[in-house]
Amino acid sequence: MDLQKYMQAAIDIAGNHKTPFGAVIVKNGDILIRSANQTKQLNDATAHAEVCALREAGKLLGSARLTGCSLITTCEPCPMCMSAAIWAGIDEVVYGCSIAEISRFMFQIDLNSEQILKASGRNMALRGHFMAEECKTLLTDFS
Amino acid sequence: MDLQKYMQAAIDIAGNHKTPFGAVIVKNGDILIRSANQTKQLNDATAHAEVCALREAGKLLGSARLTGCSLITTCEPCPMCMSAAIWAGIDEVVYGCSIAEISRFMFQIDLNSEQILKASGRNMALRGHFMAEECKTLLTDFS
Repeated sequence: MDLQKYMQAAIDIAGNHKTPFGAVIVKNGDILIRSANQTKQLNDATAHAEVCALREAGKLLGSARLTGCSLITTCEPCPMCMSAAIWAGIDEVVYGCSIAEISRFMFQIDLNSEQILKASGRNMALRGHFMAEECKTLLTDFS
Repeated sequence: MDLQKYMQAAIDIAGNHKTPFGAVIVKNGDILIRSANQTKQLNDATAHAEVCALREAGKLLGSARLTGCSLITTCEPCPMCMSAAIWAGIDEVVYGCSIAEISRFMFQIDLNSEQILKASGRNMALRGHFMAEECKTLLTDFS
């Protein structure tokens, strides 16, 4: 995986939408979906970048099950988004800033992605703090 | 609140869709939205009854914030759905079967709605085991 390229795509889509939150879905080395947070634009509290990306990927692939896909996201998935990734059967999640870091800028539910994954008993590769400084710039710029 | 009427509406929409999962959103005594689980129909792992209901209510009311609304659901919201209700600022959640009960029929993430609410620090009325026997019939019939 060319993680740096994928995270940069997540950072770019977030920046284009003037939000700290961007996410991409990658399968077999290809970026399938790029999404940003759209809660205000869509009047939809569930329209976090990750949920939007998972929904769009499901539509594109014709399946709610996203086995073989990776989710790369600028900020650690909240319990809603991490649970959504688990329900979708995502293989791998990589994030930039942690929930603890995001909490310094805005309200967060205080359960991290590791805790949600553990409660699921599912296997998933989970990696945090990847390009976290670049992702943090989005938080200082747009939150 | 005429809770029994609202839960019956959630049970009915679930039954109509041949799924254990139905949810309604109520505001000022009116049922605004009735939704069932549609993950398979929509190829969308996030399309749980509660997430669908929250999304549709946001569209209807023109706001991601659903203050003053109650979410009545046949089965305890999973961490995705409970977090979504918290992000939406829902005032009250009432459910039928608990996650522990649902786990006997299918995979669940082992974090209950009380744990998610506690981690959020938010105020919300949360009541479980309401018409649980009627809701359990949906689980035995459709899972």
